[in-house]
Amino acid sequence: MKVSVVKNILEANERIARENRAIFDEKDLVVFNLMSSPGAGKTSLLEKTISALRGELRMGVIEGDIQSSQDAERIAAMGIPAVQINTGGACHLDGNMIRDTFKEFDFDALDLLIVENVGNLVCPAEFKLGEDFKAMILSVAEGDDKPAKYPLMFHESEVLLINKIDLLPYVDCSLEKIREEALKVNPGLSIFEISCKTGEGLSAWYDWLREKVKIRRALRKHQ
Amino acid sequence: MKVSVVKNILEANERIARENRAIFDEKDLVVFNLMSSPGAGKTSLLEKTISALRGELRMGVIEGDIQSSQDAERIAAMGIPAVQINTGGACHLDGNMIRDTFKEFDFDALDLLIVENVGNLVCPAEFKLGEDFKAMILSVAEGDDKPAKYPLMFHESEVLLINKIDLLPYVDCSLEKIREEALKVNPGLSIFEISCKTGEGLSAWYDWLREKVKIRRALRKHQ
Repeated sequence: MKVSVVKNILEANERIARENRAIFDEKDLVVFNLMSSPGAGKTSLLEKTISALRGELRMGVIEGDIQSSQDAERIAAMGIPAVQINTGGACHLDGNMIRDTFKEFDFDALDLLIVENVGNLVCPAEFKLGEDFKAMILSVAEGDDKPAKYPLMFHESEVLLINKIDLLPYVDCSLEKIREEALKVNPGLSIFEISCKTGEGLSAWYDWLREKVKIRRALRKHQ
Repeated sequence: MKVSVVKNILEANERIARENRAIFDEKDLVVFNLMSSPGAGKTSLLEKTISALRGELRMGVIEGDIQSSQDAERIAAMGIPAVQINTGGACHLDGNMIRDTFKEFDFDALDLLIVENVGNLVCPAEFKLGEDFKAMILSVAEGDDKPAKYPLMFHESEVLLINKIDLLPYVDCSLEKIREEALKVNPGLSIFEISCKTGEGLSAWYDWLREKVKIRRALRKHQ
């Protein structure tokens, strides 16, 4: 019984995610879903990415948190349209929550919509939002055993950003092992080693994202 | 409908947790449930705690992971009874999973049973296991905004271990702010600042745990 209820919830969510996706397609909006453990650096990555690409891409942000609105305030302070979702206890975003934000945005004025999910290395990976792709962050402070222990998110993501590499001298974490184990779970994963604090490695991520937006839009024209 | 299903799951879990607790009471076993984000240091804390207290307390460990058995192997390597639960995707332990491990233990040969939950700062806090108390770890690398953003676990725990304080010079994190925000959520919280890497602060945690076991057993005699 419990299993079939869960299955129904996931199926209902997939239907809503497909409807969201159709709207994004119609508006030629590229959308990605950014996931990680709490405190791995999602909001910091958004701040850096917005600063770097705001001259080229018109961006909007959906912030998902259990409660509080401090992340949306950080983004809105940059002059970027930002909508806060408070899940009221729920440990992930779902398609319905995303749809509820649509009335707050002018999608015709946006090229890229970034969804920052609730900080959780498990549940967000199970719920499609209608996004074009999923991205995830792992902080080196979390340790190099995480791809083997929490494989689903590594499997579902197109890109893995290994953040806080400035901490490498002070933690027991092998970048080699993260790469190796993550690629075992998902051989197609694009991996970047970055520090949102020092800026190291970020330009390669910006290039990847620029290219991804371009390719996604080009493919859409041929659909 | 969805809400009532969730309510039924939580109620069924509470019943099983009460049954587990009755068994722990009968065996005079003190049990705690250790929770945190992925990579905050749960297994490292267990290794340190076992090394420090093994001469005084007979300990056993239940390891909860989505998959893999590396944590149980780390503990078993210390000669401590350790049982691995693989949740197969589920993001938290529940009362039933705990009960399924009982046949693997000789509770008459144990004083303290430690349950290491799945790495997740959200869902594990919702599910009682029958434990005497909950403990949580926050790593300073996760940042000082976590009590406000993920309040339930801080609310449900009796003790908060702020780990990786050796990283404080390299991260933007205020211990004062963590303390202040955590105590806002839970004024009765006991807080320790520790480093499992350097050993700093651990002796105060050992003292607290020793005392907790003693008090719990004394209270049990008067029940």
